Amino acid sequence: MSKPDKSAIEAAVARIRPYVHQTPVLTSRSLNELAGAELFFKCENFQRTGSFKMRGATNAVFSLSDEAAAKGVATHSSGNHAQALAKAAQLRGIPAYVVMPSNAPKSKIEGTKAAGGQIIFCEPTLQAREDTLAQIVAETGAEFIPPYNDYRTIAGQASCACELLQQAENLDYIIAPCGGGGLLSGTALSAHYFAPQTVVLGAEPHNANDAYRSFHAGQIIPSVNPKTIADGLRTSLGDKTFGIIREHVTDILIADEEWIVKAMRLVWERLKIVIEPSCALPLAVLLQNRREALQSKRIGLILTGGNVDLDVFFAQYEHIAGLS
Amino acid sequence: MSKPDKSAIEAAVARIRPYVHQTPVLTSRSLNELAGAELFFKCENFQRTGSFKMRGATNAVFSLSDEAAAKGVATHSSGNHAQALAKAAQLRGIPAYVVMPSNAPKSKIEGTKAAGGQIIFCEPTLQAREDTLAQIVAETGAEFIPPYNDYRTIAGQASCACELLQQAENLDYIIAPCGGGGLLSGTALSAHYFAPQTVVLGAEPHNANDAYRSFHAGQIIPSVNPKTIADGLRTSLGDKTFGIIREHVTDILIADEEWIVKAMRLVWERLKIVIEPSCALPLAVLLQNRREALQSKRIGLILTGGNVDLDVFFAQYEHIAGLS
Repeated sequence: MSKPDKSAIEAAVARIRPYVHQTPVLTSRSLNELAGAELFFKCENFQRTGSFKMRGATNAVFSLSDEAAAKGVATHSSGNHAQALAKAAQLRGIPAYVVMPSNAPKSKIEGTKAAGGQIIFCEPTLQAREDTLAQIVAETGAEFIPPYNDYRTIAGQASCACELLQQAENLDYIIAPCGGGGLLSGTALSAHYFAPQTVVLGAEPHNANDAYRSFHAGQIIPSVNPKTIADGLRTSLGDKTFGIIREHVTDILIADEEWIVKAMRLVWERLKIVIEPSCALPLAVLLQNRREALQSKRIGLILTGGNVDLDVFFAQYEHIAGLS
Repeated sequence: MSKPDKSAIEAAVARIRPYVHQTPVLTSRSLNELAGAELFFKCENFQRTGSFKMRGATNAVFSLSDEAAAKGVATHSSGNHAQALAKAAQLRGIPAYVVMPSNAPKSKIEGTKAAGGQIIFCEPTLQAREDTLAQIVAETGAEFIPPYNDYRTIAGQASCACELLQQAENLDYIIAPCGGGGLLSGTALSAHYFAPQTVVLGAEPHNANDAYRSFHAGQIIPSVNPKTIADGLRTSLGDKTFGIIREHVTDILIADEEWIVKAMRLVWERLKIVIEPSCALPLAVLLQNRREALQSKRIGLILTGGNVDLDVFFAQYEHIAGLS
């Protein structure tokens, strides 16, 4: 598959429709006042398996021929892509082999198992993940579905902005977080094809600003051991996502850790929804940067997922209730 | 005003419509499987000021004559009713005097101030609260708007079930939490008038089971110093709410603290929304009691509010991010 054109994205939207949720768009008077703009939050935390990753995985899985699909799909992931791929495979009735580092969070392991994924643990290094995956693919003939640097995945993620553009009309901007760039590149393609007047911006932690640096340098500059609470955004761009981002994204804005935590808390308190730290980036860059051009504008913000570890929070309640 | 009849509730629905949100109803495959029933969560955590209390306060405030309203409204509350009354008064452009104990949670004080409420602090005893309120009312001529034991308030809370019954048709049951009984009695009246085939159940913490005991004894038996994490449900019934509950509620189910915490966590994890501990009661009683009669039924559960203290949770993130 080559870079998704308009019809490839339309096909992805139609292909995944029976299997994914059309997620709601929330608004908040008080957050509008804080940001000095009209904000539309696209809530992928309500998506099946708890994140937008369900879209790309479902598009990839249901794009396969019956013959290819029968051998199953495989990936390596310690995050939301693992659960999403397992669920998409379960919906098609085929096996999903998921290579996970031995130190993966318990919640992600359980989520992947609950969706029927077959987990193969490996040492927590990129080399071990890639070697183990290659071995699984060789043994089973399963199709590798990459988490972001893949045009099928990108076309699936693009469906999120397609929905948003219909739910909140005449957006001046859409801001999407950027990790590996799958969501951001898909968002940029959807705006390009379906709402060319809408400007797409990426949002990235200052402490994991490889997309920002790559964007301005004109070549991929990977992050080295990035330290940010936005754990979904520690990944670096791939060549396919970078190519689309260079062509169709207008700018990448960055936010400090302090603003990421502030923005996350504001979303929890004002919208009353559970989001991951990575989701806070679009609001964080808006509030920290206060760009003049964004004032009073209609801005879509993609909230990417809600799979957050609640152990500490509920330990507090168990303690108050005398249960621990 | 006497006990709200059908037209009084219809009038309340129409009166408050411009000022309150029609909150969404959420569903979850995985929670349905856990409960063995079809669940419809009415999300009053998304209501203005973060709880259903906005409905009753708004109905009471907008029921006043212009002459009475001009003198303002008053109440004593350390909880969601304070913020709701302040906001409703602000929307009508009249003063709200809110008596609060000096040890009220900071978040409630700030929320009430943000809504334009004038706070009068007093000693943290019921006597001091009532005395201070009486003094304010005598000085200002403001109308006292009780948090639950008031037919205007009850008629406003009834609007929540009216919406739910339209959003999720043919419900077999509605379960509402019970503290002072304003929401539960309003819910029971709405079902009685608009969906008489729908059975209404109350849900209460075992550790604050005054409604359960009162219901079975046929007379009000107040809780004495109840200890439960469901802080919104520590209040005891009033004579007006008890009268309606005796007549129109079928049963009161109770849940232990352990199940309240479990149910709260399930809602956060599966629905990805922020709810208060008190909201967890309907799901907690369902999961703990596993009543045969409720299996495979269509059940509406009212999630009452989302004003929860997030300090501990975000301290964790600030620590990880190196900000504290």
